[in-house]
Amino acid sequence: MKKLVLLGSVLAASVLCAQDEVAKLALDNGLAAIPSDAAKLEEMVKAATPDYDKYATTPERVELGKYLYFEPRISKSGIISCNTCHNLALGGTDGVPASTGHLWTPNPHHLNAPTTLNSVFNSKQFWDGRAAHLADQAQGPIQADPEMAASPELVEQRVNSMPGYVEMFKKAYGDDVKITFDLVASTIGVFERTLVTPSKFDKFLEGDDNALNADEKAGLKLFVEKGCTACHNGVVLGGTMQAFNVAKQYKFMDTGDFKGDENGMVKTPPLRNVELTAPYFHNGAIWDLDEAVKEMGSVQLGIEISDAEAASIVTFLKSLTGDLPAITYPAKFPASTKDTPKPALDYK
Amino acid sequence: MKKLVLLGSVLAASVLCAQDEVAKLALDNGLAAIPSDAAKLEEMVKAATPDYDKYATTPERVELGKYLYFEPRISKSGIISCNTCHNLALGGTDGVPASTGHLWTPNPHHLNAPTTLNSVFNSKQFWDGRAAHLADQAQGPIQADPEMAASPELVEQRVNSMPGYVEMFKKAYGDDVKITFDLVASTIGVFERTLVTPSKFDKFLEGDDNALNADEKAGLKLFVEKGCTACHNGVVLGGTMQAFNVAKQYKFMDTGDFKGDENGMVKTPPLRNVELTAPYFHNGAIWDLDEAVKEMGSVQLGIEISDAEAASIVTFLKSLTGDLPAITYPAKFPASTKDTPKPALDYK
Repeated sequence: MKKLVLLGSVLAASVLCAQDEVAKLALDNGLAAIPSDAAKLEEMVKAATPDYDKYATTPERVELGKYLYFEPRISKSGIISCNTCHNLALGGTDGVPASTGHLWTPNPHHLNAPTTLNSVFNSKQFWDGRAAHLADQAQGPIQADPEMAASPELVEQRVNSMPGYVEMFKKAYGDDVKITFDLVASTIGVFERTLVTPSKFDKFLEGDDNALNADEKAGLKLFVEKGCTACHNGVVLGGTMQAFNVAKQYKFMDTGDFKGDENGMVKTPPLRNVELTAPYFHNGAIWDLDEAVKEMGSVQLGIEISDAEAASIVTFLKSLTGDLPAITYPAKFPASTKDTPKPALDYK
Repeated sequence: MKKLVLLGSVLAASVLCAQDEVAKLALDNGLAAIPSDAAKLEEMVKAATPDYDKYATTPERVELGKYLYFEPRISKSGIISCNTCHNLALGGTDGVPASTGHLWTPNPHHLNAPTTLNSVFNSKQFWDGRAAHLADQAQGPIQADPEMAASPELVEQRVNSMPGYVEMFKKAYGDDVKITFDLVASTIGVFERTLVTPSKFDKFLEGDDNALNADEKAGLKLFVEKGCTACHNGVVLGGTMQAFNVAKQYKFMDTGDFKGDENGMVKTPPLRNVELTAPYFHNGAIWDLDEAVKEMGSVQLGIEISDAEAASIVTFLKSLTGDLPAITYPAKFPASTKDTPKPALDYK
């Protein structure tokens, strides 16, 4: 009997050891968990937010930011909201190759909408990394003409014309608040900071060895061994600028005049919830995740990834599908008034 | 001292009496409350739903219907959902004169989106009353070419291609369920039945004499006395077909070829949450609620409503702004698969 127990312990230790090895491998290669500890998470969010001191997270600001995120009236037409192209239930994306905005016009570079989920942890925002943080990013699509197409003045006039919003801004920032375009975008950023989606992958990295099953662990091991973590690392498995010569390496795709940043660098797409964010790549050219994995092996790593290997890596990638905090849809937007500038649909 | 107390009682009784009179006047003129009693409400919903026995309300069906209501992938483009034109936070409408759908095309009749809130209590659906109930109505905009532009086959293929949705349908209707276009629309109808928004007006009709203040009561009294309740009656203060000769009475508005039903009858817009549903009328031609009230007096009742009277009626109308049940935004739509038909944006 004693022998049996001993044998059991040895087996358990060996399994534990094997499991630890994959988690250790992942951590050693720069993968990182979303902490389950709320205070630790908030510290990370703070560290990732250059303007945090100016726009610290409070429940009132998060609530207001949520309203503004879902608010179509901050677009010129009145019918496009942040959630149109960054649908929270579609992994923070829109599920189409190129985001389609005002007048049904696709993004001029035919760029695919990056996810807003976990985006606080991106080192840069936009495909070409031109925004340093969320508040800065949020100013872009609201103004971009083929997207929400609203001038800063229009956004300010709309919001200031609705007493319900003025009241919410006062609650969030004090009675002396001046509602500027900058503050609207920054408040959307405050809400976006909360869009963090922990998954079983995080439990695994934090030491729950059974949080991933054997197939998922095998996929994770392969993901590291093939070299994917060279770019897909950190807490969002991506989000940093990397060498990616669009013109050279992606010659088979129509990239318009998109060239990445001034050095030809492109932001590595974060991989959390990647199962939900097809189609893939900056131009949304590939719909199938297996195919995307093989394509990356070929153009970025110069290796061939077999069908079986791609399937295994995808099994791991699906473990990155996480859970948003429960989000109550805004009960009631503030009513427009006589002073609210009318929507402009600009029909052709 | 005794005299004073007595005087107080008389005053109180007289105020009470006056308050009761307005509620009585409203009830006598066909206005009705959304019952605060949940069982009573469900009975009313049942009575208003011809296909209730086939699609009885269950939590699983309501949840699935909510997903489908917010689901853009049941449109041809993949970017328009029911909520695009019937935004739950905008009083169940889109806040623009004419609903704008696939390819940024306005409704061909330039018709304004009727609200989905409380719409279970409409006697007919659509401006021309061509649908008898919600399940029937929901089939329309999904297929309509300038709206969601999806064929029934496309909707069936999309939904059936996603195991997550198949699972939800099984939970809602049993393992043998066949997911048809009809069932998708009917399930959206099940969700829409829950979009009921009681307000202080209902408390007032149910006997809480202080639920409305003196100004709101005065407005309600005027609303009845001016004759508005001839058409705006029942639990949604509208929702029935009424004589409204669009061509004659609305000659100053561009109505396209919209003529109402075969008898020239038009559905009276329900007035709950009317504060949130500008612009007004079937063609969204009037933005200001005061102006809309005066216009109705003139073209429908043949009377002149003064500015002060219109303001008073609007004060009452604002008491009809109610509360939706809290709606959690879908956490995560089911992932698309290789078999999911791709979105078709049809760029020109």
